[in-house]
Amino acid sequence: MSEKGGISMSLVDVRRHIEAHRDDDLELLKKLVAQPSVSACNMGVRECTEMLRSLLTELGCNTVAICPTDGQPLVFAELKSKKAGAKTILFYGHYDTQPPDPVEEWITPPFEPTVRDGRLYGLGTADNKGQFLAHLLAVRSWLATEGDVPVNVKFILDGEEESGSPNMRAFVETHKDMLMADLVYNSDGPMNAGDFPEIKLGFRGDLSMEFELTTATHQNHSKTGQLIPNPAIELCQLIASMIDRDGRVLIDGFYDDVLPPTAYERELMDRYAFEPETLARVYGVKKLLKTAKEAYYTQLMFRPTFTINGMSSGYCGPGHKTCVPRSALMKLDVRLVRNMDPDKVLEKIRRHAAAFDPEIVVRAGKAMYPSKSDAEQPLCQAAIAAARSVYPNAVVHPSSGGSNPDYVWTGIMKMPSVTVPYGNADQTNHSPNENLRLDCFHKGIHVSAAVIGRIGEI
Amino acid sequence: MSEKGGISMSLVDVRRHIEAHRDDDLELLKKLVAQPSVSACNMGVRECTEMLRSLLTELGCNTVAICPTDGQPLVFAELKSKKAGAKTILFYGHYDTQPPDPVEEWITPPFEPTVRDGRLYGLGTADNKGQFLAHLLAVRSWLATEGDVPVNVKFILDGEEESGSPNMRAFVETHKDMLMADLVYNSDGPMNAGDFPEIKLGFRGDLSMEFELTTATHQNHSKTGQLIPNPAIELCQLIASMIDRDGRVLIDGFYDDVLPPTAYERELMDRYAFEPETLARVYGVKKLLKTAKEAYYTQLMFRPTFTINGMSSGYCGPGHKTCVPRSALMKLDVRLVRNMDPDKVLEKIRRHAAAFDPEIVVRAGKAMYPSKSDAEQPLCQAAIAAARSVYPNAVVHPSSGGSNPDYVWTGIMKMPSVTVPYGNADQTNHSPNENLRLDCFHKGIHVSAAVIGRIGEI
Repeated sequence: MSEKGGISMSLVDVRRHIEAHRDDDLELLKKLVAQPSVSACNMGVRECTEMLRSLLTELGCNTVAICPTDGQPLVFAELKSKKAGAKTILFYGHYDTQPPDPVEEWITPPFEPTVRDGRLYGLGTADNKGQFLAHLLAVRSWLATEGDVPVNVKFILDGEEESGSPNMRAFVETHKDMLMADLVYNSDGPMNAGDFPEIKLGFRGDLSMEFELTTATHQNHSKTGQLIPNPAIELCQLIASMIDRDGRVLIDGFYDDVLPPTAYERELMDRYAFEPETLARVYGVKKLLKTAKEAYYTQLMFRPTFTINGMSSGYCGPGHKTCVPRSALMKLDVRLVRNMDPDKVLEKIRRHAAAFDPEIVVRAGKAMYPSKSDAEQPLCQAAIAAARSVYPNAVVHPSSGGSNPDYVWTGIMKMPSVTVPYGNADQTNHSPNENLRLDCFHKGIHVSAAVIGRIGEI
Repeated sequence: MSEKGGISMSLVDVRRHIEAHRDDDLELLKKLVAQPSVSACNMGVRECTEMLRSLLTELGCNTVAICPTDGQPLVFAELKSKKAGAKTILFYGHYDTQPPDPVEEWITPPFEPTVRDGRLYGLGTADNKGQFLAHLLAVRSWLATEGDVPVNVKFILDGEEESGSPNMRAFVETHKDMLMADLVYNSDGPMNAGDFPEIKLGFRGDLSMEFELTTATHQNHSKTGQLIPNPAIELCQLIASMIDRDGRVLIDGFYDDVLPPTAYERELMDRYAFEPETLARVYGVKKLLKTAKEAYYTQLMFRPTFTINGMSSGYCGPGHKTCVPRSALMKLDVRLVRNMDPDKVLEKIRRHAAAFDPEIVVRAGKAMYPSKSDAEQPLCQAAIAAARSVYPNAVVHPSSGGSNPDYVWTGIMKMPSVTVPYGNADQTNHSPNENLRLDCFHKGIHVSAAVIGRIGEI
């Protein structure tokens, strides 16, 4: 491949091909959006997987398979490069969507994709059909212009992402060879308000749990205060023993496995925009607890959380009921950062609660491991450079503050994984009138094509 | 009045008269119970007050009045003794009842008083028609045998006791002369499981309140943990700053006005039965927090409480919602002992909360002052002796653990007030199949007659 100003000549042709097919590509996305695929209520899933099978077969994939799971099937496809020693990219995406409710709030129906003001409206346009389609179309343009892709390409399209991918881990564990790659690449979610992607090299894990304490068989008259235990007061005291007013968790060993940001990661953070007033407005709070940029992003990406999600006890209706509750319930979650293990954290929490009062029941809910790819790893660097070739302002987040099952790639498969969102900031996914700006869609195809080109050069 | 073995000859005659009228008295109680008087839904209230007016007029009262309030009317009556310098007893009772629901659980209908197995079943039999009627019938027997009562008698029959007597205080404050007496005497509630009365010389006050903290305009994703405030965690920490694990309240000055039991009160406590295992079973707890008799009763009667009645925040439904709640609510009550002032206590709590976080809203609910009569006061002693003349095992509780508006007598009117329950332990008031054992009813008449006799001798 020849170079010209840092861009391979091949990629110039690929770009031209992408530009020439804007209208066709929009039509294809419309076709995909018009096909319902609501995993939660099993609406159109089979038809959608068949449509994808045809699409991937027409693309020229060597292998196309619809893989059953205990839930909705996955769609897998593979396309081998003719290049000897080519790297392999696994493109992850999901074909399932949220349910369209409330349907009456859609300006145009969710399954009738419609262009208005430079956006395609429809359920799944941005989340995630338009985004994974960008990868397919990038491959299509490489094949059309070069007769080959410079990397081996694998696609794995999830059918249960909107339900938390409950069967993904088991599938990955039993299909390691099939899924093996040098890099996992995923486009999902919106870009930021500045209209450029925040590239994620990891996600925090999450551990959900509940604390329950039952101290009596029935609610008692409050004259029994301080004569019998009060489960609500006791759970409050437990919480206060677990976290101080500065938000520091006091559970023994809680931070043991937490790693500070590296020098490079701190450099990355330096590039982020930070407008504490804007963030406070978005969250609807008077003031952030971390008002300095580094403190804010360090907490978001490199520190675990400890959060009460809900609590309930006794009587909280109108007026007053002077009772001692019989039980109290608290729901909590802990976001975990790289190197933390949900099982170990849970064990530490259990130990703390048991030492506080062995009657307190700690019930574990969902657990998700944190994921982490090395920002300085060459394939990650290539993907980042590719994204910046289209979005020069793109920033790199060593971790998302949120969670997703990215750990199946980084943890189980030991593959680096990069997430580059292509959607517009106001895509309103999981809400009526989901949309994908057409320029974002087309730029996404360019980013995917550049990723293939850059990795192909390694 | 002549004495014979500590009992005046007059009282012997009175007793004989009471015994001779057992059947008539039961018929009168049935008539009163058959007349509905549900204050909450204004059912039969007017008819009941008219029935009481007739009854009190027939009794020979000098004054009988139905006194309007902002809610249900009170019935007042007065009967003057011919004796010069006679003491005055104000008999307090209430003619209103709880609603009869759930009606279908009554074995015989709530307004069809029925005798079964030595008990009269019907709504209001024990709470409180049978108990206040005992006072009237005692007066009736004194008049029938002696042609006079040795004390001036006043009756005040509340029409809103079951709704917390919201208009009682205002009424008392504007009718002090009318209500003035040397002793207030009230029979309400059940005797204890040993089938003898616990005589109450006071009631704890009660202060209801709620704490609310709103930290955001909307629920946030829990990735914002430790970046924005968590109102549930903060209220837990507030509670932990207010009360320690031994149940000791840490609010500055909380115990300032609390008085320890006197030597005499400790003597009284010595006489109480105390079966911690039985109490634990009644409360449905594994173990009481106070397992020594003196510690238990001191907490119940001489120490304030601090109780979370309920708490609510965020999501507590099935599964998990990884959110930071926007607000948290706690409902609490504090039982107050003699010499404590709800306004002062509230102010201390407000100060503590404001110092903790001025954003926390402390909202005051109902407040009730504690009441206290001196156990060693001669009229109280006379009433106690009268009760013991019928129930030798009767014990004296300087305070009830619960609350009632007794403060209007002891605090506003500065009159001693004694409560002697006449109902059987299993009267099941506020529940279907409320009943009054016939022997308890008749013994109650004897106690009231003895109270009149004893006070008449002072």
